[in-house]
Amino acid sequence: MAPPTPRLVVSVDLKKKPWEQALPLHNRWHPEIPPVAHVKVSEVFRVEMVDWTGSVIKDDDSAADVKFIDLSTVHYLSGPIRVVDKETPAMPGDLLAVEICNLGPLPGDEWGYTATFDRENGGGFLTDHFPCATKAIWYFEGIYAYSPHIPGVRFPGLTHPGIIGTAPSMELLNIWNEREREVEENGHNSLKLCEVLHSRPLANLPSTKGCHLGKIKKGTAEWEKIAKEAARTIPGRENGGNCDIKNLSRGSKIYLPVFVEGANLSTGDMHFSQGDGEVSFCGAIEMSGFLELKCEIIRGGMKEYLTPMGPTPLHVNPIFEIGPVEPRFSEWLVFEGISVDESGRQHFLDASVAYKRAVLNAIDYLSKFGYSKEQVYLLLSCCPCEGRISGIVDAPNAVATLAIPTAIFDQDIRPKAGKVPIGPRLVRKPDVLRCSYDGNLPTTKNPAASM
Amino acid sequence: MAPPTPRLVVSVDLKKKPWEQALPLHNRWHPEIPPVAHVKVSEVFRVEMVDWTGSVIKDDDSAADVKFIDLSTVHYLSGPIRVVDKETPAMPGDLLAVEICNLGPLPGDEWGYTATFDRENGGGFLTDHFPCATKAIWYFEGIYAYSPHIPGVRFPGLTHPGIIGTAPSMELLNIWNEREREVEENGHNSLKLCEVLHSRPLANLPSTKGCHLGKIKKGTAEWEKIAKEAARTIPGRENGGNCDIKNLSRGSKIYLPVFVEGANLSTGDMHFSQGDGEVSFCGAIEMSGFLELKCEIIRGGMKEYLTPMGPTPLHVNPIFEIGPVEPRFSEWLVFEGISVDESGRQHFLDASVAYKRAVLNAIDYLSKFGYSKEQVYLLLSCCPCEGRISGIVDAPNAVATLAIPTAIFDQDIRPKAGKVPIGPRLVRKPDVLRCSYDGNLPTTKNPAASM
Amino acid sequence: MAPPTPRLVVSVDLKKKPWEQALPLHNRWHPEIPPVAHVKVSEVFRVEMVDWTGSVIKDDDSAADVKFIDLSTVHYLSGPIRVVDKETPAMPGDLLAVEICNLGPLPGDEWGYTATFDRENGGGFLTDHFPCATKAIWYFEGIYAYSPHIPGVRFPGLTHPGIIGTAPSMELLNIWNEREREVEENGHNSLKLCEVLHSRPLANLPSTKGCHLGKIKKGTAEWEKIAKEAARTIPGRENGGNCDIKNLSRGSKIYLPVFVEGANLSTGDMHFSQGDGEVSFCGAIEMSGFLELKCEIIRGGMKEYLTPMGPTPLHVNPIFEIGPVEPRFSEWLVFEGISVDESGRQHFLDASVAYKRAVLNAIDYLSKFGYSKEQVYLLLSCCPCEGRISGIVDAPNAVATLAIPTAIFDQDIRPKAGKVPIGPRLVRKPDVLRCSYDGNLPTTKNPAASM
Amino acid sequence: MAPPTPRLVVSVDLKKKPWEQALPLHNRWHPEIPPVAHVKVSEVFRVEMVDWTGSVIKDDDSAADVKFIDLSTVHYLSGPIRVVDKETPAMPGDLLAVEICNLGPLPGDEWGYTATFDRENGGGFLTDHFPCATKAIWYFEGIYAYSPHIPGVRFPGLTHPGIIGTAPSMELLNIWNEREREVEENGHNSLKLCEVLHSRPLANLPSTKGCHLGKIKKGTAEWEKIAKEAARTIPGRENGGNCDIKNLSRGSKIYLPVFVEGANLSTGDMHFSQGDGEVSFCGAIEMSGFLELKCEIIRGGMKEYLTPMGPTPLHVNPIFEIGPVEPRFSEWLVFEGISVDESGRQHFLDASVAYKRAVLNAIDYLSKFGYSKEQVYLLLSCCPCEGRISGIVDAPNAVATLAIPTAIFDQDIRPKAGKVPIGPRLVRKPDVLRCSYDGNLPTTKNPAASM
Repeated sequence: MAPPTPRLVVSVDLKKKPWEQALPLHNRWHPEIPPVAHVKVSEVFRVEMVDWTGSVIKDDDSAADVKFIDLSTVHYLSGPIRVVDKETPAMPGDLLAVEICNLGPLPGDEWGYTATFDRENGGGFLTDHFPCATKAIWYFEGIYAYSPHIPGVRFPGLTHPGIIGTAPSMELLNIWNEREREVEENGHNSLKLCEVLHSRPLANLPSTKGCHLGKIKKGTAEWEKIAKEAARTIPGRENGGNCDIKNLSRGSKIYLPVFVEGANLSTGDMHFSQGDGEVSFCGAIEMSGFLELKCEIIRGGMKEYLTPMGPTPLHVNPIFEIGPVEPRFSEWLVFEGISVDESGRQHFLDASVAYKRAVLNAIDYLSKFGYSKEQVYLLLSCCPCEGRISGIVDAPNAVATLAIPTAIFDQDIRPKAGKVPIGPRLVRKPDVLRCSYDGNLPTTKNPAASM
Repeated sequence: MAPPTPRLVVSVDLKKKPWEQALPLHNRWHPEIPPVAHVKVSEVFRVEMVDWTGSVIKDDDSAADVKFIDLSTVHYLSGPIRVVDKETPAMPGDLLAVEICNLGPLPGDEWGYTATFDRENGGGFLTDHFPCATKAIWYFEGIYAYSPHIPGVRFPGLTHPGIIGTAPSMELLNIWNEREREVEENGHNSLKLCEVLHSRPLANLPSTKGCHLGKIKKGTAEWEKIAKEAARTIPGRENGGNCDIKNLSRGSKIYLPVFVEGANLSTGDMHFSQGDGEVSFCGAIEMSGFLELKCEIIRGGMKEYLTPMGPTPLHVNPIFEIGPVEPRFSEWLVFEGISVDESGRQHFLDASVAYKRAVLNAIDYLSKFGYSKEQVYLLLSCCPCEGRISGIVDAPNAVATLAIPTAIFDQDIRPKAGKVPIGPRLVRKPDVLRCSYDGNLPTTKNPAASM
Repeated sequence: MAPPTPRLVVSVDLKKKPWEQALPLHNRWHPEIPPVAHVKVSEVFRVEMVDWTGSVIKDDDSAADVKFIDLSTVHYLSGPIRVVDKETPAMPGDLLAVEICNLGPLPGDEWGYTATFDRENGGGFLTDHFPCATKAIWYFEGIYAYSPHIPGVRFPGLTHPGIIGTAPSMELLNIWNEREREVEENGHNSLKLCEVLHSRPLANLPSTKGCHLGKIKKGTAEWEKIAKEAARTIPGRENGGNCDIKNLSRGSKIYLPVFVEGANLSTGDMHFSQGDGEVSFCGAIEMSGFLELKCEIIRGGMKEYLTPMGPTPLHVNPIFEIGPVEPRFSEWLVFEGISVDESGRQHFLDASVAYKRAVLNAIDYLSKFGYSKEQVYLLLSCCPCEGRISGIVDAPNAVATLAIPTAIFDQDIRPKAGKVPIGPRLVRKPDVLRCSYDGNLPTTKNPAASM
Repeated sequence: MAPPTPRLVVSVDLKKKPWEQALPLHNRWHPEIPPVAHVKVSEVFRVEMVDWTGSVIKDDDSAADVKFIDLSTVHYLSGPIRVVDKETPAMPGDLLAVEICNLGPLPGDEWGYTATFDRENGGGFLTDHFPCATKAIWYFEGIYAYSPHIPGVRFPGLTHPGIIGTAPSMELLNIWNEREREVEENGHNSLKLCEVLHSRPLANLPSTKGCHLGKIKKGTAEWEKIAKEAARTIPGRENGGNCDIKNLSRGSKIYLPVFVEGANLSTGDMHFSQGDGEVSFCGAIEMSGFLELKCEIIRGGMKEYLTPMGPTPLHVNPIFEIGPVEPRFSEWLVFEGISVDESGRQHFLDASVAYKRAVLNAIDYLSKFGYSKEQVYLLLSCCPCEGRISGIVDAPNAVATLAIPTAIFDQDIRPKAGKVPIGPRLVRKPDVLRCSYDGNLPTTKNPAASM
C-alpha cells in the first residue's frame, strides 16, 4: 500500500497575521523557541509558509508598502520542527539531511514580488545608485513567471526556500551576537569596505521590536529574555539560515549541523526564482509557498563530515546537493567586473566590489534594449542568472562575472554588427512601481553613463 | 571551394626561449608594442602560445622550479595581432568580436601543471594556510586530464585562454599605473582586507626586470622607456587580459573594446581546465596550446554597447558569450562560506572572505576521503568547479558557494548515513610535489581542523 | 492585480466511477461528443483526470486486476473542452496552441503503476517473450518515484499527459475507421511484420462495449449511433491523441490541428514518467493527475504551418515544443539493436525489429545485475530512457538504440574489467507482481540467453 | 614524465588513392584481412582515415560525382589494428573497450559534404520523394559547420566515427552472408515493407568488384577467395560496424565483442555531424579525419556482459557509453509521424514508416521558412536532430518523433500567431547542387503538399 500523502505539519492561513496562525510563526533564531511540530525520519511531510514579510507587501499599484516596511519583523519562519529517529531525537553533533521532494506556491496565491528598499530603510547591493524603493509584481503560469512591470521577459522559476536552518545552541548564539555587535559598533572604523557597499546598518542585532517567538507568549518574562538574545534571520550563518542558494530546488538535499536536541528545523522565505547574489535585497521573486521534505539523521555526522573553520567546533557550514531538475539554458551573455570601483579607485582582490561592477555593467547594457535601469536591477535580482568569482588571485583585481541566459528575453540581446534597435528605441512600458527617495545620503553618479 | 585551413599567424617553437621565437613574445601591456601579425575580419587564423611561464615549469619530480620562479617574466603572450576590415584597421571606440573556433594543446606537448607558489614568491588565495610551493603534473588523454600526483580523479577539460585582450591606449595605461601604484603604496593602511588575503605584493607595478616587449629590442632607449611604463599582465583589466573565465571555450565569443588602431590583440596563458577563482594562483592546468580565432569589428561598438563605469569613457569591461559545447554534469556537491574569517571575526558583506571559507570547507571535507589537503587545494583550482556569489545583501554575511561535480571522482563523495570509508582511511598516494617553506610569515592554523 | 488562480474546469472525484463524475468522462473520439467545459484563450485553467483505466488497477499485492482488465473501456479522458477567442470559437483549419503550464499527481493520490498485459488480453512490445500479466507499484516522493517491486532504482519523473488531442471531424473519423478496418481484416495477409510484433488484435475498431461518451446518455439512439462510429483512443493519430511523447512536460507547447468548431480538446492518461516507446504497453507510470493549461488559437494555422502527408488535407500531424525544465543526466549506457530478429532472420530496414532487439539486449544486460527480466522490462517502459532511430538507410539493417541514464541505479551498471558483482549475485527482491499465463500462444525463447 | 604523444599507428595521405596508402585500406569485413598495426592496452594511439568514399566526392560545384559514384568501393576503413595486453592478444570471447579520447578533421582538410544518391544508385530513406542526386558542401570553423548551399544554418558538430568494429569470425561472416542473401533473393516476396522504403538493392552481398582487402594483393588466389566471402560494410552488425550513433563523440566508450585473435579493430567513415537516422544515406557531414583511441580488454567479457539474441552465441551487439561533452540545446521543435503512409494506408506498429512520415512532416514545415525541400532533407540528415521511437505499443500506430534544435537557424522557426514571414517568402539561395533523375521508377507525390 502506498505511503500516505505527505503529512501537513505546518499549515498557514494567508488571511491571518503571522502571529495569529494556528502554529504561530517566529522570526528569530533561538534554542528555546519550542517546536510546533514533530516529524520522523523518512516520512515525507509538508510545510507551508507565508512570504518573508508576512503579507505586508501587496499585489497593488504602489511601492509605498516597500518604502515604509518595518524590517524588524522579517523573516517569518515556519517551525521549529523537531526531528526524531524512531524514539531518539536528532542530537547535537548529528547532521540532519533534508531532502526537498517538492515545493511550489500555495494554491490560490500564485504571485510574487521583487523590490528594492529605500536607502534608509534596508537598501540593497546598489542602493547608492538606486536609493528609491521600487516594486515589481510577478504572476505565475505554472513554471513560468512574468511581470506587468517588466514587459518582454518570461522565465521558468528555479523555486527554492531562501531560508532553511536548524536552531543554534546558546553557545553558538552568543558567538553570533558577539561578532555581529563588534562589526556593528566598530566596523566603520575597521572595515574600509563600507565605503563601497552602502547598506546600513552593518548588522541587525537582536531587538524586541518586531520580534515573534512562536509559541512563546509576548510580554512574558521568558519572551523578554529570549527576544533580547535571539538572532535576526537576515544573514546566513553556521546553521544554514538565509543562504539564498538559488539552485536549492526540487530534489536537492541539505546537510545541516544539529546544535540542539531535535534539530528544530525552521524554514521560510520562499523564492519562485532568484539570481545569484539576490542583488536588490528583496531580490528574489518573494512568495508564500509550501515545501515537501524528508529528513534523515546522520548520527555523529558533524564530526564525521564537517570541519570547523574557526575557533570553536561550532564554526561549521552546511553542505548542499543540487537536484537534477533545472531549467536548461544553452546561451549565456556574460558581464565582467573587476575590483576597481565607480570612482576609479583600485581595491585589492575584493570580489564584492568586482561583482558590484559586473552587475552595474549588465544593468547599463540591458538598459540599451529599452528597459529602465530599475527594471534590469530587479530582473537581475530574480531571474536565473549566475554570479561567479572567476579570478580571485590575480592581484590587485578580483574578477567577478554575471552570466545571463539570453532565452528569457523576447528579443535578441547580443551585440550585433549593426546597432541596437535603430530609430526611437524600444521602450518597455510600464515601468516598475517606484517611490521617491526623500533622504540626504549621497548617490553614486556614474559620470560616463548614458542616463 | 573550401576556405583555406586556418592560417598560422603566430607559431611557437617550444625548444626555443620566448624571446628567441621567430615572432618574439611579450609579457607586458603597452600601446607601442608593435604588432607581429595582421589578420582580416572573417578569416579563421591560428595562434600558438607557450605556457604562461615560457617553459620554466618542467614535467619532472620536483617543485623547486615553482618555488624559485622569477615571476617578473610572466605571462608570455602571443601577438599583438593587428585586425583590419578590408583596408581599415579596427579603431579606438570599436568593439572587436573575437570568436574562439577551436583550441587545444600543441601536438607533442599534451601535458600541463597546477601549482601553488611559495608564500614569499607569489602566494595564492590560501597562502596563509598553505605557504609551501607545490606542483602537480597533469597528462591529457584527448578531452580528459589525469594526474599522477592526484590519483582517483579524471575530468574533461573546459579548455580556454586565461588571457585575451587588446592593447591599452597611453591614457588607459596611465590610469592603470596610477591606481595600482596607489594600492601598492597605501593599501596596507587603507585596505583592511589585506589581513585576510595574504598575497604580497598588493600589486605588481611596471618593472624592467624580466620585461619582454616583442619586436622592441632590449637595451634600446625605446625599450627602456616602454618597459618602465608597460603594465604587468597579472590582473584582468578594462582591456580583458587575465580574466580567467573558465567557460571561455570552443564556440565562445569575446567583445573587446578597442583602444589603439588595429586593436593589437594578444593572447596567452592557455588553461586545459580551471575552477572558478583559480584559487591556487598558478591554479589552472597550465599548458602551451593553440587558438583558432575569427574576428569581426563592430564599428563604434564601445559607445553603442559598453557603458563606462568610472570617471572616464575608458572605464569599461568586455562582454562574453559562452559557447554551447561544455562538459555536462548533473550532480554537484556544494560548499558554503560566510564572511566570517578563520579567527571567527565578522566581516561586512565580504565575498572574498566568504569564498575563502567555502574553499577551506571543501578542502577539509574532501581530505576526509583520503586526499591530502594540498591535493584538494590544487584540484579545486583546476577542476570544473563553480564559485558563486549566492548572497551579497544579507548584512553582515556575504554567502559564497563552491559547487563541485561529483562525477570527477572515482568514489562517491557524498555524505552517507554510515561513515566515510571505515577503518584505515583510503590514502591517495603519491602526493603533490612539495618544497619546504623557509620564510617567517605566520601561518593560519585552524585549531579545530583535523590535521 | 494578479490573475485568478487557474480555474478548475474539469474536476474528478476518485471515489466515483468515471461515468459518475460531475462532468462525465469519455473514452472515444467523435465529433459529436459535446463539450463539458468552455475556456477562453490566454486563461490558465486546470483539468483533472483519472488514470487511464478509471481506477481499475489498484495499489494492492496482485496483478490479477491487470490480467483480467477490460480494455474496451480505456482510456478515460477529461473533456471535451471548447476553446473560444473572445466570442469566436476555434474553427476547423485553425491551430490550437496548448501550453502545459504545470501538471502533477492529484493530492492524496501520489502513486502509480506500470504493467504488462497478458498475451491474450492486450500484450505488449515483447509479449512473445513475456506473456504473463505483471505489475509494479510506484510511490512518489515529490519529483522522485520508487517502487517496492523494483528495488534499487529511483528517478525523477518527466511527467506528461499520454493523451492530448482535439476531436476529429466526421470526415477524419471515417478515414480512421476505414484504414484501421483494412489492417484488422487483411493485415495478417499483407503485413509480414506481424510475425515479429505479436500484439493482437492488429487494431481496435469501434465497439459499443465499454464505450463512454460523456454527456451522451447510454441507451439512447444517439449513443448507439455514435458508439458504433467513435474511434478507440489507443493509437496516436492526426488529432494528436495517444502520442506518448515522454518529454511533453512542464513548459511544453502542443500545436494541434482543429477539425471541429471549438476544437473540443480532450486529455488524459497521465504518466508520472515514461521511457521512449512505452514498451510494456501499460508501460508508463500510470496515474491520475492534473494539468494546468493555457490555449492560444492560430487562425488558419493548419494551412499556414502543417502540410498534409497523405491523400487529403486532413492527413496532418501536430507539432510539439519541448519545455526547458527536464531532469538532466550526463551519463548514458546505450544498447543497440539491428533488424535481425531473435530467430536470426534478416529484416529490411525495419526499425521496429531493431528496437525490439535493442530493448531485449538491455533487459538481458541489466538482469545480470540482480534484477529479474520482468523488473527490467517494466523499468525500461517507465524510466526516462531514450529510444533512437540511429541508422535507417544502411540496408538491410536499421540500427535502433536505447540509452539508459546510469544515475537512476544505486549501483554502477557499466561494464568493468572485473566481473559483475562476484559471488552470489545480488538479487533484487521482492519482484514484480505476476500472474500465470494460461494461454497456448507460443513463446519466443532465446536459446542463447542466460535464463 | 608525461606519456608520449598519441602514437600515429595509421596515417593517410590524402593525395594518394586508398589502395596506395603506406598502410593499405580495406572496404570489407573478413577475418583474414591481416592487421596493419599493433597497439597495447592503455596506450593512446592515433588513427587517420580518408572519407568513406576515398576522396571520390569533391569540393566543387557539381553533384555529378555523387550521381555516378561506384558504391561497390565504400567504405574505406583504416586498420585492422591488433590489440594486445602485455603479450596476450585480445581473444574471441573478450570485450574490447575502446575509448574515444579525441577526434576531428585532418588538418588542411577542414570540409565535408552531405548528399543524396540517385534513386537507381544508392537512394536514401526518402528516395521515392527525392530521386535526384544532390550535394551540399560544409566548411568548418572549429566546432562549427556552415554550408554555402544551405544558407542561414550553422551548428556545432557532434563529431564521431560512423564505423568502428572488430573483424568477424568465419562463422559469424557465414551467418551474415546467409541471412542477407535470403533477404536479397526472397525479400520482395516475404517483406511487404519494401513498398514503403524504396532502397534497392535490399542488401549488398559480397562482390569482388570494388573490393580492397588491405595487405592482401589483388589478383592472388587468396584475394579472390576472400573477396567473394567478405561482407560489405554498409549495414551495422554484431561487430559494431556502421552503427552511425551520432553521440559517439569525445569521451565515449565502445564495448565491442571480439571474434578473432587480436580483435582486428577497424574504423572509418568520419562524420563531422549527423542527425539520428542519417536519413539521406550519404547523410552525415562526411569527411576525412583522425581518432585518438585507447583500448582495454575485458577478458571473457562477451559471456559476462553480452547476451546473445538469436540462435548462436555470436548474435550479440556492442554496448556504448556516451561522453559528457556535447552541444547543449534547450529548445527543440518536435515533428511526429504515425505508421500511416503517404497513400493513407495503415501499417501495423511500423516505426520505419512512422519515422518516414515524421521526417516528411519536418521537411515540409521547414520549407515554409524559405528553404528548398532538398536543403531541409540534407540538413535533417546531418544536423544534431534526434529521432525517437515515442510509442511502439499502441496498435496499429507506431509514433516516431523528430526533434530539431531551434538554435541552429538564424531565424525563429516556431509557429507564431501571425503567419510565417509575410510577403515574398524568404528564399534561401543558393540551393543544393543537384543532378537530374533520368530513371523511370515512380516518384511518390504528395498531392496535398504545397510544392
